[in-house]
Amino acid sequence: MPAEERSWWGWGTTDGELSKEESDALVARTSGVLPGHDFTDHPPPDPADLDLPAPRIRPPATLAALCGDGPVDRLSHARGKAFRDVVRNLLGRLDHVPDLVARPRTEQDVVDLLDWCTASGTPLIPYGGGSSVVGGVEPRFDGPAVSMDLAGLGEVLEVDTVSRAARIQAGIFGPALEDRLRPLGLTLRHFPQSFAHSTLGGWLATRAGGHFATLATHIDDLTESLRVVTPAGISESRRLPGSGAGPSPDRLFLGSEGTLGVITEAWMRLQDRPVWQVTASVAFERQENAVAATRAIAQSGLYPSNCRLLDPAEAFINAGASVGGGLLLVAFESADHPVDTWLDRALELTAGHGGVVKARRSKNSTGQDSASAWRSSFLRMPYQRDALARRSLIVETFETACTWDGFPEFHDAVTSAARAAIDAVCGGAGVITCRFSHVYPDGPAPYYGIYAAGRWGSTVAQWDEIKAAVSEAIAVHGGTITHHHAVGRDHRPWYDRQRPDPFAAAITAAKSALDPAGILNPGVLIG
Amino acid sequence: MPAEERSWWGWGTTDGELSKEESDALVARTSGVLPGHDFTDHPPPDPADLDLPAPRIRPPATLAALCGDGPVDRLSHARGKAFRDVVRNLLGRLDHVPDLVARPRTEQDVVDLLDWCTASGTPLIPYGGGSSVVGGVEPRFDGPAVSMDLAGLGEVLEVDTVSRAARIQAGIFGPALEDRLRPLGLTLRHFPQSFAHSTLGGWLATRAGGHFATLATHIDDLTESLRVVTPAGISESRRLPGSGAGPSPDRLFLGSEGTLGVITEAWMRLQDRPVWQVTASVAFERQENAVAATRAIAQSGLYPSNCRLLDPAEAFINAGASVGGGLLLVAFESADHPVDTWLDRALELTAGHGGVVKARRSKNSTGQDSASAWRSSFLRMPYQRDALARRSLIVETFETACTWDGFPEFHDAVTSAARAAIDAVCGGAGVITCRFSHVYPDGPAPYYGIYAAGRWGSTVAQWDEIKAAVSEAIAVHGGTITHHHAVGRDHRPWYDRQRPDPFAAAITAAKSALDPAGILNPGVLIG
Repeated sequence: MPAEERSWWGWGTTDGELSKEESDALVARTSGVLPGHDFTDHPPPDPADLDLPAPRIRPPATLAALCGDGPVDRLSHARGKAFRDVVRNLLGRLDHVPDLVARPRTEQDVVDLLDWCTASGTPLIPYGGGSSVVGGVEPRFDGPAVSMDLAGLGEVLEVDTVSRAARIQAGIFGPALEDRLRPLGLTLRHFPQSFAHSTLGGWLATRAGGHFATLATHIDDLTESLRVVTPAGISESRRLPGSGAGPSPDRLFLGSEGTLGVITEAWMRLQDRPVWQVTASVAFERQENAVAATRAIAQSGLYPSNCRLLDPAEAFINAGASVGGGLLLVAFESADHPVDTWLDRALELTAGHGGVVKARRSKNSTGQDSASAWRSSFLRMPYQRDALARRSLIVETFETACTWDGFPEFHDAVTSAARAAIDAVCGGAGVITCRFSHVYPDGPAPYYGIYAAGRWGSTVAQWDEIKAAVSEAIAVHGGTITHHHAVGRDHRPWYDRQRPDPFAAAITAAKSALDPAGILNPGVLIG
Repeated sequence: MPAEERSWWGWGTTDGELSKEESDALVARTSGVLPGHDFTDHPPPDPADLDLPAPRIRPPATLAALCGDGPVDRLSHARGKAFRDVVRNLLGRLDHVPDLVARPRTEQDVVDLLDWCTASGTPLIPYGGGSSVVGGVEPRFDGPAVSMDLAGLGEVLEVDTVSRAARIQAGIFGPALEDRLRPLGLTLRHFPQSFAHSTLGGWLATRAGGHFATLATHIDDLTESLRVVTPAGISESRRLPGSGAGPSPDRLFLGSEGTLGVITEAWMRLQDRPVWQVTASVAFERQENAVAATRAIAQSGLYPSNCRLLDPAEAFINAGASVGGGLLLVAFESADHPVDTWLDRALELTAGHGGVVKARRSKNSTGQDSASAWRSSFLRMPYQRDALARRSLIVETFETACTWDGFPEFHDAVTSAARAAIDAVCGGAGVITCRFSHVYPDGPAPYYGIYAAGRWGSTVAQWDEIKAAVSEAIAVHGGTITHHHAVGRDHRPWYDRQRPDPFAAAITAAKSALDPAGILNPGVLIG
């Protein structure tokens, strides 16, 4: 997508921003929940008014054509799109801005840029769509930095329709990829919330979570092989449907977040485009029944494509539904066979736990229900977040995963920590929501939302306190600091506690072998 | 299982060996295929007659009670159970025999043994059930060696029936594990051919393939967390149903084959015991139709528990069926719901490719068919292999995986290489069989069997030539050198070619961090 359409300060594209009417309606709805809050709008500054320091480095002449240092370009690559990133943009805080934005057009350009950065000891941050919500692309360190924007490597190079796989360059964005596959009847079917604004390489480097609520929940599971440029050479794994030949090479690079190399290509497993889709929404009066029903489905071997349990607050805010204990959105899809039998059994399981079916529909049927309302809302959420962030609200999410047996206590601990932090830093004015974004036979991936009343100029610090409190609760009660948002710089302290020490030693040694100058995304995961 | 029941020279237990009647019948059947072969029986030597060198090392007094140096104990830990291992035992070839067999009874014993070996620079080979078919447990190097037999760590420590997971010590054997889980209605449902003679730790260290032909094909997928003793400390990952926090720690140790640490415990994901099971066998006249039908099922999203395509030779030898193109054994199972709908659709797919259903049955129905015949045969195969190995036959398997689009050419290349090698070293007297042991949406895992007429005293060298030829074909044509048999020492040359060089550098560095003295299973994977 042309760079000029992308918002330098907020989510996605400038076209996507809320209209005045939408903003007014959102403010009206929100003020009902947070009465007394000051909803004054704080629009973004003009980048020209920001006192951006001059670049501290220059590329060698051979690479100059690949490198830009325009102020908006540098600003738009300075950080990701977390709440704390957007608010710092709104405040005109510069913090850490890369000196150059490099745009390789070929893999050899990537090699050359890495060689230059290695020789000169210049930190380099691989940048896909820049939708990180964990500080993954921010040069949060002293000294110069190069942001390497991989959007120039955006082609589908080869499609194997028999094995249903494609060799794809890492810089391709979600919509462009699906546009290329659609005429072939194929799809990657990886739809993170950031789908339009993130790249295959970003998904792979961060172990992104996608469309499927069960089975292939992460991009990892859709990966057949990887090609990665490291300072020590190019690593290319073999296209294999399965292997048992030593530890998986791909699993080392999946989740390496730009610290071990730059992913340039991948063979990805594709799906036939679904023909049959059925979905239902099921209401529960009691939360424990909703959780038990969801667990029953997760353990049934039915493998729904969607199995999203919304708590009452989430159901009310984002699906327009009033429920006492929770609203379960469950869906099945197939390119091969009707899936009504699958949904029938899932609904038998929910009925056994007191669930009441509110709606059931098939693909191409018209009409609105809670599931479609929630889906529309889902893609608009980050834009709404930006509109509220401009009005001094703290609107952010965090996510994790835990086992089913531990969930009730875990959930109490996390929400209590969030509540206590909101009380302490926001005077109590706030709402906490929870949904399960993905479910496994052995546990759910809870996804939490926070809506709290902040004070303009302080909302980043307020959020950081809330985030630290919930992260501590997650760490203490055995969850993961991230199920699919990645570690980045924001999660680092808790990641270090979660990661076994010998594994830390092993991966640090692996990094030294692959990136001896330590130029790749310093501060993330390692070092 | 008590050590005395296990065969020191051959597969499994002494009880399992073929009776005289079974051997005679097997020889009669085989001589029909390989007329003119000399079927003279060469029974194993008496271990007392072997000139076993005295141990070159002694344990420190504090560890003496854990260590044995009895001749049969050392002999039975000297190698795995590949054809070339069994024949060398029959020939009384000592090659490399460990000096001590250490049997830790606690995790602290493992730590203490590693400390001693690290301090003294003594190579240590973790040993589970010793069923390796790739030279994984053989001290194939000069100098002393300790074999650490983990059978003393054989308990199920904790069961979480809500999340369906258990904390299990690594030295437990398959039957003991299932005995512990059965009263709870749970099962790990990991049934490699070696099930009775291998341990959880061995499955984890080698990325073993198990019961399920689709989805959770490897033990990897059943693993929730690992506890690993390394010379650099104990690595324990968190129990998580899913995570995106950096590269997966568990995926580094899964498949590490004893080179990075000793797995002592794992939290494993369990299943409810299946209630509904349906199976069918489908015959095809043409191989390409059989493959296309199998691919259609693998890509259908139906996820059969079994989807085993036998070629005509495999179907005839091991399932007693005469087919022109192949016999597909397909099965579904569930603890939650009847699975007839699933099988119905799978059989529609096979019918679309000309498949003819030969038998269909549900769990608990009686009567023999090709599927049950094949399953009985499957568990007896290694014992039959031993009986034939004693009679100068070359009977061995090898396995791989490749993509669907490449399979026809790949299969031709591999079988041509096998045929040419059999022609060259066995004068052409041999049979090659193929089955798909597991199938994926993007490709099958072909499993090959060789039955060839050897010359007593030369069958190891003959097999090694055949194996080198097929391994070369696999490497050149893009397969993996192993789908689930592991790398060990036998696959090392081809593994080194398959493994990306930067990944080799990374994992070598990781080993240096975890095992600085390089004592753990030298020669396997690294170093």
